Amino acid sequence: MFDGKKRVVIENPRPRVDDGRFPAKRALYETVEVKADILVDGHDALRAVCLFRRESEQEHTVLEMTHLVNDLWTAEFQILAMERYYFTIRAWVDPYASWLNNLRKKHEARQDVAVELADGALLIEQAAARAPVQEDRENLHRYAAMLRESAQGDAVLLAGGAGVSELMARYPDPNTFSEYGQELVIEPEPAKAAFSTWYEVFPRSTGMGLAHGTFATLEELLPRIAAAGFDVVYLPPVHPIGSTFRKGKDNSPDAGPDDVGSPWAIGSEDGGHKSVHPQLGTMEDFERLVTIAKDKYGIDVAIDIAFQCSPDHPYVQEHPEWFRMRSDGTIQYAENPPKKYQDVYPFNFECDDWIGLWAELKSIFKFWIERGVRIFRVDNPHTKPLPFWEWCLGELRKEHPEIIYLSEAFTRPKIMYRLAKAGFTHSYTYFTWRNSKQELTQYLTELVEHAPRDYFRPNFWPNTPDILPEYLQYGGRPAFIIRLVLAATLSSNYGIYGPAFELCENEAVPGTIDYVHSEKYEIRDWNLEQSGTLWPFLTLVNRIRRENPALQQTWNLRFLPTDNDFVIFFAKESSEKAEPGSEVILVAVNLDPHNPQTATLTLPLEEYGIDESQTYMVHDLLGDDKFVWQGRHNRLDFDPRQLPARIFRLKRKLKRETDFDYFM
Amino acid sequence: MFDGKKRVVIENPRPRVDDGRFPAKRALYETVEVKADILVDGHDALRAVCLFRRESEQEHTVLEMTHLVNDLWTAEFQILAMERYYFTIRAWVDPYASWLNNLRKKHEARQDVAVELADGALLIEQAAARAPVQEDRENLHRYAAMLRESAQGDAVLLAGGAGVSELMARYPDPNTFSEYGQELVIEPEPAKAAFSTWYEVFPRSTGMGLAHGTFATLEELLPRIAAAGFDVVYLPPVHPIGSTFRKGKDNSPDAGPDDVGSPWAIGSEDGGHKSVHPQLGTMEDFERLVTIAKDKYGIDVAIDIAFQCSPDHPYVQEHPEWFRMRSDGTIQYAENPPKKYQDVYPFNFECDDWIGLWAELKSIFKFWIERGVRIFRVDNPHTKPLPFWEWCLGELRKEHPEIIYLSEAFTRPKIMYRLAKAGFTHSYTYFTWRNSKQELTQYLTELVEHAPRDYFRPNFWPNTPDILPEYLQYGGRPAFIIRLVLAATLSSNYGIYGPAFELCENEAVPGTIDYVHSEKYEIRDWNLEQSGTLWPFLTLVNRIRRENPALQQTWNLRFLPTDNDFVIFFAKESSEKAEPGSEVILVAVNLDPHNPQTATLTLPLEEYGIDESQTYMVHDLLGDDKFVWQGRHNRLDFDPRQLPARIFRLKRKLKRETDFDYFM
Repeated sequence: MFDGKKRVVIENPRPRVDDGRFPAKRALYETVEVKADILVDGHDALRAVCLFRRESEQEHTVLEMTHLVNDLWTAEFQILAMERYYFTIRAWVDPYASWLNNLRKKHEARQDVAVELADGALLIEQAAARAPVQEDRENLHRYAAMLRESAQGDAVLLAGGAGVSELMARYPDPNTFSEYGQELVIEPEPAKAAFSTWYEVFPRSTGMGLAHGTFATLEELLPRIAAAGFDVVYLPPVHPIGSTFRKGKDNSPDAGPDDVGSPWAIGSEDGGHKSVHPQLGTMEDFERLVTIAKDKYGIDVAIDIAFQCSPDHPYVQEHPEWFRMRSDGTIQYAENPPKKYQDVYPFNFECDDWIGLWAELKSIFKFWIERGVRIFRVDNPHTKPLPFWEWCLGELRKEHPEIIYLSEAFTRPKIMYRLAKAGFTHSYTYFTWRNSKQELTQYLTELVEHAPRDYFRPNFWPNTPDILPEYLQYGGRPAFIIRLVLAATLSSNYGIYGPAFELCENEAVPGTIDYVHSEKYEIRDWNLEQSGTLWPFLTLVNRIRRENPALQQTWNLRFLPTDNDFVIFFAKESSEKAEPGSEVILVAVNLDPHNPQTATLTLPLEEYGIDESQTYMVHDLLGDDKFVWQGRHNRLDFDPRQLPARIFRLKRKLKRETDFDYFM
Repeated sequence: MFDGKKRVVIENPRPRVDDGRFPAKRALYETVEVKADILVDGHDALRAVCLFRRESEQEHTVLEMTHLVNDLWTAEFQILAMERYYFTIRAWVDPYASWLNNLRKKHEARQDVAVELADGALLIEQAAARAPVQEDRENLHRYAAMLRESAQGDAVLLAGGAGVSELMARYPDPNTFSEYGQELVIEPEPAKAAFSTWYEVFPRSTGMGLAHGTFATLEELLPRIAAAGFDVVYLPPVHPIGSTFRKGKDNSPDAGPDDVGSPWAIGSEDGGHKSVHPQLGTMEDFERLVTIAKDKYGIDVAIDIAFQCSPDHPYVQEHPEWFRMRSDGTIQYAENPPKKYQDVYPFNFECDDWIGLWAELKSIFKFWIERGVRIFRVDNPHTKPLPFWEWCLGELRKEHPEIIYLSEAFTRPKIMYRLAKAGFTHSYTYFTWRNSKQELTQYLTELVEHAPRDYFRPNFWPNTPDILPEYLQYGGRPAFIIRLVLAATLSSNYGIYGPAFELCENEAVPGTIDYVHSEKYEIRDWNLEQSGTLWPFLTLVNRIRRENPALQQTWNLRFLPTDNDFVIFFAKESSEKAEPGSEVILVAVNLDPHNPQTATLTLPLEEYGIDESQTYMVHDLLGDDKFVWQGRHNRLDFDPRQLPARIFRLKRKLKRETDFDYFM
């Protein structure tokens, strides 16, 4: 364990999730910024390298690390393949660099350095003895001789020259290498994991009038959805719907003969989780929808996987052992006492045949992957065992690293985070209920600055079929605009449940957050051309997201100050490197949907290369207004009836640029 | 790895240092508060236990954990032996408690629970099948029968009764246990690691006038030092002092024949690290000092271990291979180019005989431990390899867990923390240079609230022989009072370098933080009875520390608000449990040594059980003043010429108490 020749210690390598128990995640083309604290006694110079490899590679790539500050070292590499990456860290004392530092200081202080030069020549000869390349060996010996023979001033210059330094760096003494030991893992994710725009729609509501829509009628909507900038169309469960205890309109316990039932009551004599609901079409229709969406519009059709059964599901007959049996011989239905959900049977994940059940459930994902589905929204994963997800998603990922899983877990934070560690790509979040500046700032800071960022990707939804928040119920159309802009700019992944959202549907069952005439229980005849529709605005916001790389990341969020608690202000930068000319997106939103607000926005001008005395231009991409500002403080009015939000673009100044360069 | 019956997951158990790479530390009689995040899907009731054992024990003690909030569970145990403690965590779903919760809700909602009662009877019978004790088995079967046969109301009451609940808790199903897996380690430390008061003194300055003091003259000072409340007397190196390149007064390179030299230039013909300097007395004198100090005064004599040699050290002749040889055949002296320290040879810890060198250095500690020393101050540990310390202190600790090591590392933070992880008990800190309210608040918050608290114990020193901070140079006597009160109350471990401190010695070599006439190079004739000495004040402060358990911990620090940036205000509570009647110490210090300051102190009254409308008394233990306050805001003047600091004692209110109870 201890070796006197290995003086360096390596601590706290990152990214590392739960002591390395789980992989950190990065999407394709994202950068892995490796960090570690690397320590040594005294003042010797250090070298540190990050060794990384793809799963399919035997050899590590060796990446030189750089000292940032305070013993923190860093290096970065990019994910270029959908394979696991493994990295570890090696560090050692660099005796030649240490010697050179001291030599220069002594020489500058006009001390005699004859002995020092001889010491250095010895170091060079030791490196020569380690060099397998004859030419390098010879060159090193030549340098050693020159150090011994040259005048001191010349020798000092020579010792620090590129020639010898480069050779010395090539042949460190492996006996002095400290290794971190453990390989840490980066799990690759598809590029869409980092940036995606979701549109949730009930296919059965896409028909003419109240006629039952189908995969085919939905197909007709694809051009419109694509034109608005969505790249994921997400469907509630597409499986046959049970009839026993079917729920009627507005969740009524008594369904009439024409009631279509909830898509989450899965399974009937027409099949279960591997079948499609006959009224939506055939499996071929579904596959056609998936293919056309992808090939023609770049849209992924995501489906909802809800691991539960209606009493009519074939599993109930075929595998009663997968359910919990009550003492009277009936199967235990779902309940949240005293509430009963008799139309839904949960699986008993800890049943004696859990191995068989788990395998079957995994095969459901596999079935749909084989039919072209690449994105799954998973219903209530927090009511299924966490170890099940880790196993199931881990096994699936081995063959299909390209799949995205969205966790519909609105539950306690650590459970949500654990689901992400266990393999969910995206998660629903508390954004849906965070409205005030303080709430939003606190929550986003947790997501963006703390550990979750290595494994938990938020997907922001202002509404869902289950949730019509009070803010939307009472805030009118401005509230929808506000929540849309927040979702679409705070998070690079967001979605809406439409058409309820774009049409500003805000009527709830009184005292609840449930939609009246909820599509969960009936077909809705939406008028997509309704006046006041947010569709054009949505389209603009999605276009701004597509055109500005700064909005295609979530982790680059940074809150900026305003003097008004109703106005939230934040920046997103396209590059972490603060390069001149790189783009800064500044978003300011009036969170008060009822009243105009005025706020002074404060910008960190010095970081943008802009002097306090200069004017600079910001371009509001929402209103297409251009403002010429001066100084860090700028006062602005936000009228919710006009435009409660601004999305400014500003370019970092180049070092020497004329005023013309401000204009974009 | 996966088992469908084990649904619970255990995350982030604490205390855990660097993923369990290092033990967390607790002093004897301190409490280990074990925490972990324990998660399960759905709404089932959980049980969790902490399993802990001493190193000498085979069997674990099983400690029930309690749910605090947000899936955080906790349990605590006390360190009662100087042995390593090991703990781990086990958790599982409690089906009976889960069933009982649901049963009650249904019964309250007046639902028929016949089937539920039969389900419960089954659970009880399953537990009976696991019970090895016949009586328990029979009782469980009896309860099951009663559940089946009683009227529903009676059965519901019975099911929740203590009898059956207690039995059911006794026989959980081990097949459902999730285990954290790894055992985490707590390293025991002696009680003095948590609370100690240090007095640094040069024995050679304890003689009459300028006569060379000895262990015997120091012994005569012990009653005085003990009476002032110090329990550690720490001596600079006591070994023979070299004469080659000996430094003269005020670090002059030319020593006169009478110059006594620096005690850190260790080794002469009289011996090295295992000898005492002849002018201080004999080894027997030293052992006598150690014994009398301990037995008569409860004082530990701490010595300084500085791993370096004067050119005259016997090691230089006996083991030239332990030093770095230069190309001209001379031994490399210490340097910080262009500065040269030719009187000191550092060891070459990575020499080819590092095993021999390391073993010899460890044997130096062992030598002094055998002579009764229990506390070592270690000089510049950050210039010796970190792996050396981990090995050396780890090996020593196996036989001698009772030893305290103080790290004299004034260096970068991560190095200081790593030394603590590697085995140092105490560390010098940046306190010596942190003067403003913001600096102190920020630094103490880092030490107290973040990871270091599990392994890094600060020891606060307002001065050392190497450091006379500018604050003390220019702040006059009030500055000494301010820094003393801060050191003694912010940290439960603190020390002063006397008599320079108590006599308010403030003359530095201009432009430096070096004392003029530094005792490092000459004998000083201190007048301990000098007017203005802080000795009586020191004695009072030390008495307050001894009498108030709240000041015998460091981690209970909490900053409170004031409206004046010159006045720092903080609380320490004797018990984390906020029990009525427990003691709160409130410290307020004017950090401006030059000017009177007035500040409004704001107290969290509700936590002390005191109503805004009530009066309450605080007792200033420094000025022996009693104040009757009302409300959370109280305004106070601090005149540095009178008393720049207050140490208030306040007792938490009992729930029902009369006004008389305020008086202590």
